[in-house]
Amino acid sequence: MKYDKKQDSSYAVGMFATIELLKYQLDNVVGVYYSDKIKMNANVQRVFELCKQHHIPVTERTKFVESIAGKENVFLLGEFKKYQTDIQPGNHLVLVNPSDMGNLGTIFRTCLGFGVKNIAIIKPCVDIFDPKVIRASQGAFFKLNVQLFDTFDDYNHIFSQNTKYMFCLDGDTILQNMHTSQRPFSLVFGNEASGLPNSMLALGNKVKIKQSSDIDSFNLAVSVAVALYQFTK
Amino acid sequence: MKYDKKQDSSYAVGMFATIELLKYQLDNVVGVYYSDKIKMNANVQRVFELCKQHHIPVTERTKFVESIAGKENVFLLGEFKKYQTDIQPGNHLVLVNPSDMGNLGTIFRTCLGFGVKNIAIIKPCVDIFDPKVIRASQGAFFKLNVQLFDTFDDYNHIFSQNTKYMFCLDGDTILQNMHTSQRPFSLVFGNEASGLPNSMLALGNKVKIKQSSDIDSFNLAVSVAVALYQFTK
Repeated sequence: MKYDKKQDSSYAVGMFATIELLKYQLDNVVGVYYSDKIKMNANVQRVFELCKQHHIPVTERTKFVESIAGKENVFLLGEFKKYQTDIQPGNHLVLVNPSDMGNLGTIFRTCLGFGVKNIAIIKPCVDIFDPKVIRASQGAFFKLNVQLFDTFDDYNHIFSQNTKYMFCLDGDTILQNMHTSQRPFSLVFGNEASGLPNSMLALGNKVKIKQSSDIDSFNLAVSVAVALYQFTK
Repeated sequence: MKYDKKQDSSYAVGMFATIELLKYQLDNVVGVYYSDKIKMNANVQRVFELCKQHHIPVTERTKFVESIAGKENVFLLGEFKKYQTDIQPGNHLVLVNPSDMGNLGTIFRTCLGFGVKNIAIIKPCVDIFDPKVIRASQGAFFKLNVQLFDTFDDYNHIFSQNTKYMFCLDGDTILQNMHTSQRPFSLVFGNEASGLPNSMLALGNKVKIKQSSDIDSFNLAVSVAVALYQFTK
């Protein structure tokens, strides 16, 4: 009874993510489920009232909630229909072949925090709707535009006016020394293990984050965070 | 047969962490174990040679390796005696009551990448030797000084000459606007959920990371990363 990526719907797990789902993606909500261990409080009441107001079914399904939530203490979840969003012109984050769900969710939350609300993801990639991604994003996913592209060229063709900054370990420009940047920008990051393919590096300005030789590289979510910090300062 | 925090020893899980263990904490290595699924390659050979050279026992223990590694594809691990390190004078990261193992490991790796090698941790906190922490640190743990303190006052008493920067959501100073900082510095961060206790905020300069009102707060590992980035630029 666990989540399967072939499903047409997925789940916002926990109170906080469910509230964000109801606030920002109301049209896509299928239903809300709770476990018999739930304790009534102001937040639960708020969820139940929102559902009533918008005619969203609320059902007790204890075992189902537990099977989706796994080991975590979760008593409520919201089911939503998977939906497509198109990214809008402006500053973008572009992730090429991201493969770690926890990282991806953290990156979504970080983007929202730094005000970059349009994220392009180049396939293949993890299932962006997996409950683990939504949960790590703390519901930030529901406030973002996240669009999948088959290739980087597909993305680049539509947003050719954006200046591309390609993050890699041997960039010409050091992030720490950058004082100005072109806008709108696209900050482009490769896969956690393999980075950006060499063939893509020539398509933009190569930037590296200066780091000690004691580590191979920073964690992807960390690299994205410091880049967003620098570019939105 | 899983890891128990009451043990006197813990494990570096996987090839990369085991190599770092052998390189940087040789005196504390107890033994190296491998699974019968291991495939010989240059790295494995290197580990075996290092062990032979330093008279470290290497044993096939397939089930044991699998029970420690959990779901991950890991065929090798190094056991090490838990050890104490004292932090040295200089720039510090101070974590008050960290509770998430993955975050803590990521923070260790980030610190090493930005050249801040001394980390104070104020109890209570997660088990810093848990294999999950070591693994998320990608072996960075073995190159750092990580010291536990019972209270922040204990730390503050010894390192009174460090300028303390207390990270919180209502700081007077905005990180993004900081152009200079006092050295040596201590960057102080609270627990993932509750932040720093109010009683501690007066003990240093209150700093906030400017963020959109769309999120509650950044992930702890993200906050630490951008702070380290700014202070070591």
